[in-house]
Amino acid sequence: MTGSELIDELVTALRCLPGVGPKSAQRMAFHLLERDREGGRRLAAALEGAMEKVGHCRVCRTFSEAGVCAICANNKRDQRLLCVVETPADVAAIEHGTDFRGLYFVLMGRLSPLDGIGPEELGLDQLARRLESGDVAEIILATDSTVEGEATAHYVNEMVRERGIRVTRIAQGIPLGGALEYVDSTTLAHAFTGRHEVR
Amino acid sequence: MTGSELIDELVTALRCLPGVGPKSAQRMAFHLLERDREGGRRLAAALEGAMEKVGHCRVCRTFSEAGVCAICANNKRDQRLLCVVETPADVAAIEHGTDFRGLYFVLMGRLSPLDGIGPEELGLDQLARRLESGDVAEIILATDSTVEGEATAHYVNEMVRERGIRVTRIAQGIPLGGALEYVDSTTLAHAFTGRHEVR
Repeated sequence: MTGSELIDELVTALRCLPGVGPKSAQRMAFHLLERDREGGRRLAAALEGAMEKVGHCRVCRTFSEAGVCAICANNKRDQRLLCVVETPADVAAIEHGTDFRGLYFVLMGRLSPLDGIGPEELGLDQLARRLESGDVAEIILATDSTVEGEATAHYVNEMVRERGIRVTRIAQGIPLGGALEYVDSTTLAHAFTGRHEVR
Repeated sequence: MTGSELIDELVTALRCLPGVGPKSAQRMAFHLLERDREGGRRLAAALEGAMEKVGHCRVCRTFSEAGVCAICANNKRDQRLLCVVETPADVAAIEHGTDFRGLYFVLMGRLSPLDGIGPEELGLDQLARRLESGDVAEIILATDSTVEGEATAHYVNEMVRERGIRVTRIAQGIPLGGALEYVDSTTLAHAFTGRHEVR
């Protein structure tokens, strides 16, 4: 409690951000008030704009304020490669970390029957229509390496194979730069099973 | 880069918060868009309100949307005790952690001649007028235990003594619950010098 209602409201509101507890929320509020009111105003405007206007791309389902997102609308990208990911954050990670220049299909989640998330919630009917259009030569499965991510990859894999289209899964194994000693045992076992000839 | 201008703007704007780097800003933006748009809207409104309307209490200089803050306006508090602190966050910490029921004077900084922060910037002329009003029986110096905080406490101490008013400084020593082994040597030396008879 700071004695000011507006500041208390701001501290409470800041706690909707992930990883922000009461202490850091208060620190953020005071920081903005003392040193960066302009930044605070800009943040208010950016939040308002994004919360109101960001919807979903009607082609790939990622977040977009336009009906079709910048990646889908870019006809210089390889329209025949389609990478299936769980979230828009995965798109950002792949765009940032790889030189992939195909398109994406964003599930906005993962199969999780207990939470009522089935194929329809993930837009897999939409993906099926896209596969049937004949424009896609390869589906790259880039869902998380979790139980649910694997189940989702498996489901999409079946769906794509049925239609005779090539499916690949991004490689799983020990991370680069990771010391073997500290890699968890499941990953290590998987890396052993998945070993390949040295060429 | 997420491919959406509004999201990129939001990610950039979130970085004005202390301790928020590019990765966590992106995580925050996606979290709000995916799971808590209502929270994002509330945060936008709270930011706007606080940035526009929070000024300073004209009595104690802390942040306040009213001309006089809730603490100064509360006539049940002991008007004769005045605790001098550096920031509004210090007021919140003392209100939360102690049963102090006097009033505050918030310097909104600390003496730092190199940064051009002298007695005037800290409102010490205002404090002097308050001391001369004869309402204050004790000044409690609760500035930080840093070089600048100590210098500030020293300066205020001189100012108050001149006027024959009682001045105290909050105790310095080893923190409660702290293992001696891990206390820094300056604090430990200070705690030794400041030892007192066991009663």
